[in-house]
Amino acid sequence: MEKAFKNEIKSQFPYLSNSKILLAVSGGVDSVVLAHLCKIAKLDFTLAHCNFNLRDEESDADEDFVAALAKKMKVALFVENFDTEQYAKDNSLSIQMAARDLRYDWFEELRLKHQFDFILTAHHANDSLETFFINLIRGTGLEGLSGINADSNYIIRPLLNFSRKEILAYAEENKISWREDSTNASTKYLRNKIRHELVPVLEEINPQFLETFLKTQSHLKENEELIEDYLSLLYPKIIGKTEYGYSLDINYLKKVPNSSAILYQLLKSFGFTEWNDVYRLLDAQPGKMVFSTSHRLIKDRDYLLLTEIDKTEDKVYKIAKNEDFAMLPMGTFSFSEVKEINDKRSNCIYINPEKLEFPLTVRKWQQGDIFYPFGMKGKKKLSDFFKDKKLSLPEKENSWLLCSGEKIVWVINQRADRRFSITSSDQKIIKITFSL
Amino acid sequence: MEKAFKNEIKSQFPYLSNSKILLAVSGGVDSVVLAHLCKIAKLDFTLAHCNFNLRDEESDADEDFVAALAKKMKVALFVENFDTEQYAKDNSLSIQMAARDLRYDWFEELRLKHQFDFILTAHHANDSLETFFINLIRGTGLEGLSGINADSNYIIRPLLNFSRKEILAYAEENKISWREDSTNASTKYLRNKIRHELVPVLEEINPQFLETFLKTQSHLKENEELIEDYLSLLYPKIIGKTEYGYSLDINYLKKVPNSSAILYQLLKSFGFTEWNDVYRLLDAQPGKMVFSTSHRLIKDRDYLLLTEIDKTEDKVYKIAKNEDFAMLPMGTFSFSEVKEINDKRSNCIYINPEKLEFPLTVRKWQQGDIFYPFGMKGKKKLSDFFKDKKLSLPEKENSWLLCSGEKIVWVINQRADRRFSITSSDQKIIKITFSL
Repeated sequence: MEKAFKNEIKSQFPYLSNSKILLAVSGGVDSVVLAHLCKIAKLDFTLAHCNFNLRDEESDADEDFVAALAKKMKVALFVENFDTEQYAKDNSLSIQMAARDLRYDWFEELRLKHQFDFILTAHHANDSLETFFINLIRGTGLEGLSGINADSNYIIRPLLNFSRKEILAYAEENKISWREDSTNASTKYLRNKIRHELVPVLEEINPQFLETFLKTQSHLKENEELIEDYLSLLYPKIIGKTEYGYSLDINYLKKVPNSSAILYQLLKSFGFTEWNDVYRLLDAQPGKMVFSTSHRLIKDRDYLLLTEIDKTEDKVYKIAKNEDFAMLPMGTFSFSEVKEINDKRSNCIYINPEKLEFPLTVRKWQQGDIFYPFGMKGKKKLSDFFKDKKLSLPEKENSWLLCSGEKIVWVINQRADRRFSITSSDQKIIKITFSL
Repeated sequence: MEKAFKNEIKSQFPYLSNSKILLAVSGGVDSVVLAHLCKIAKLDFTLAHCNFNLRDEESDADEDFVAALAKKMKVALFVENFDTEQYAKDNSLSIQMAARDLRYDWFEELRLKHQFDFILTAHHANDSLETFFINLIRGTGLEGLSGINADSNYIIRPLLNFSRKEILAYAEENKISWREDSTNASTKYLRNKIRHELVPVLEEINPQFLETFLKTQSHLKENEELIEDYLSLLYPKIIGKTEYGYSLDINYLKKVPNSSAILYQLLKSFGFTEWNDVYRLLDAQPGKMVFSTSHRLIKDRDYLLLTEIDKTEDKVYKIAKNEDFAMLPMGTFSFSEVKEINDKRSNCIYINPEKLEFPLTVRKWQQGDIFYPFGMKGKKKLSDFFKDKKLSLPEKENSWLLCSGEKIVWVINQRADRRFSITSSDQKIIKITFSL
C-alpha cells in the first residue's frame, strides 16, 4: 500500500510534496494510517485533532492517544476541545452536523492562521460507497450519488481510491495501533447495516464491486460536471441580480428544454424541497410563493424572484419617547424638533408629536392594514396603495410601517398618514428621518 | 389499484384511450395484471405472446395459458414461435439478449403490419430498481441508473410507478391466475438475489424506499436530459460528416471544459469501452487508433475520425478468367478488350492480359506491400506512396488492390503497376474499369 499511496500522490496530487499540510486525525484507523503513509511519503504535515467531548473519558483517551502518536511520529499537533452538544443546541443542528461544522470551521481557521496549503482527511472508498447508499436510501439526485470530492477547495482526500480492507490490512501488517472512531456516532447504525448487510451481497455477485463502483462514480462525477458546464452557459441568460436577491427569467426558462430540471439545479442550494410546488410556480398567478427554510420564491409577472427570508419579519420594534436616534435592523430613525417644513424628500416626514402615542412601533405591513394617505381624501387599504404604485412583490415585502398604537404614522419612505400631519403653524414640529 | 391505474393513464398517457394497442403478455403475473387493467380501463388492445421455446413443455403451457386468457378476455392474440437458441448462436448473443431482440423485433413488425399505435409492456417499479442494481454491480454511468423509460418510441410502460407487491396483491384479491415468468432466466439468479437480499435491507432502513427511489430516479432522468440538451448544443460544433463516417474537431474539444466526458457521451453508442485509451487519443500522435467492436477511432492531425469497421476487411475476393463483370462489395469491375488506350481517367487501366495470373484477387492493402508505380522508376512501398499523396487515414484504410498472384496490378483508382502495362502495339489490350 505504501507504493500505491506514493503513486497516488505522484499522479493525482503531485503538488502535495511541496506543500505545508494539516492532517485531520481522529485516532481511528483511517486517519492514523494516513498519518503513517504521509510520514513515509515524506510529506510536510502537522496533525489536528478535535475533541468533541461526546463520550467523556473515551474522548479524552482519543486525545491522549493522538498526542502520543504525534510525539512518536515527531510531528506537531493541534488539539481543540468543543462543547458539541451546546453548539448543536444553539444552532438547531444534529450532533453529527454540529461536529462536522465545528471540525471544518476549526481546520479552516488553523489553515488561515498557520498558512497551511491543504487539509488532508482520511475518507476512503468505502466511505464513499456508504455515503452513496445513505443518500440513495434517503432519496437524492445525481449530486448525492457521485461521491465525495477527492479535491475540493483546500481539502484533499488521498485515500478515496483505497478500500477499508486495504487500510486495515496495512495497519495490521505494520502493527499500527488505533482507536475506534468516536465520531459519526449518529450514522453508525446506518453505516454498519450498509457495511455488513448490503455490501457483502454486492461483493458476492461481483468480487471486484468496489473497484467497479469507483469507476461508475467517476462517470457520475463527469456527468455532474457536464451539467455544471451547461448551467454555467445558461446562468447569465436566466438569472439577474435584484435589490432584494435574484430574479429568474420565466420567459427564457420556458424556451429552454427541461426547464423544471434547470430550475431544480439553479435552486437546489437554497433549500427548496417541494419541487412540484416550485415547478408549478412557472405557470402560477403572480403573487404565488413557495418557501424554503431560508428563502422565498415569488412568481411576479415575467420573473421568479428569489429573496432571503427576513428573519426579523414578524418582529415589532419599539421606539421610546425622547429618543434622538433609533437604530433598528431595517434602518435608522432620527428625531429632531424643527421650526418649519423644508425637506420634501420621501425619506422624512414632519408630524405633530402631540398626536403620537409612545412607544412608537415599527413593523412589516399586513393584509388588512388601512391608512389615511397624506394628500388624498378618505382611507385606503395598504394593499391597494401598493397596487396603485405598481410595487413588485419584494418591494411590498420590504415595506415597513411606523405606527402609533394601532394607527399607521408612516409607510416608511413612501407616504405619510395625514392624521399625524401638521395642521397649524403654532404646533410643535418633529422631523423624522429614515436612513438605511 | 384499478383507480390508481386509471389515474396513471389519465395523467401520464391520456392518448392511450384513443389508441390501438399491442400488449406484450408472457403469462407472468405482471403482464396478466396489465391485461386485466387495460380491459377495465376500456383500452383497445390485442395481446402478443412470444414462445421462445426455451423450456419445452413449460413454454408450450405458457402459450396455452395465454391463448385461454385471450379467449376469456375476448381479445385478439398473436403468437410467434422462436428458435431462440439458434438465433443466439447465429448472432453471438446471450440467450437473454437474443430473446430481447426477437421479442422487440417481432412487436415492431406487428406494429407496422397491423398499424398499432403503441406497444405496452408490464415493467414495474421493482424491475426498474433491480435493473439499477444490476447495472451498478456491473459498472455503469448515469444512463444505467436513471431507469427504464416509461415512454420510448412506440413502447409504453404504464406500470413503472407500481410495485411488484401491489401487482401481486391485485392479482390475488381478484383471483387472477398467472404462470411464473419463463423469460429472463439468465438474470433470474441475479434478480432474485437483489430482490431477496438487497432490497429488504433497504426497506428495513426506509420502509418507503421504493417510493423514494422512484423520485431519485426521476431526478437522475432529469439530469440525463440536461446532459442531452447540453450535448445537442455542442454536437454541431464538434461533429462533422465525412465520406467515411464522422470527424470530431479536436481543437474545439480541447477548448470546452470536461472534454473527455463529452467525448464519452458522444462515443458511447459506438461501443467504445476502453475509455482511457479514447481520452489519450486527444493528445496522441496522428495515426494512433482505438477500436470498438464496430468502430474505429483514428487520430488524424486536427480531427478524430470515426469510421465503421469494414467487415470485409480481411477478405480476399476472386475474379475468374473470362468474366465481363465482377460485382464485389467495394464496387464493380468491368473487363473489355479494346483496340487502343483512349481514356485517361483514374477509374480504369489498360493492361496486357497475357501477364495476368487468374483468378485475379482484390484485397485491402497491408503494411509491407510494394509495387512498381506506372510513370515512375523502381519500386515503392505502398505506405510511402500514400504518404506522398497525403492520403488521410480513412482514405488509406479504404484503398483496395487488384492483384495477380502476389503482384499488385492496380492500386484501384489511384495508380497502375507498370509491370502489367502495354509495351507494344500488337498486344491484346484489356481495359478494366472500376465503378462504385
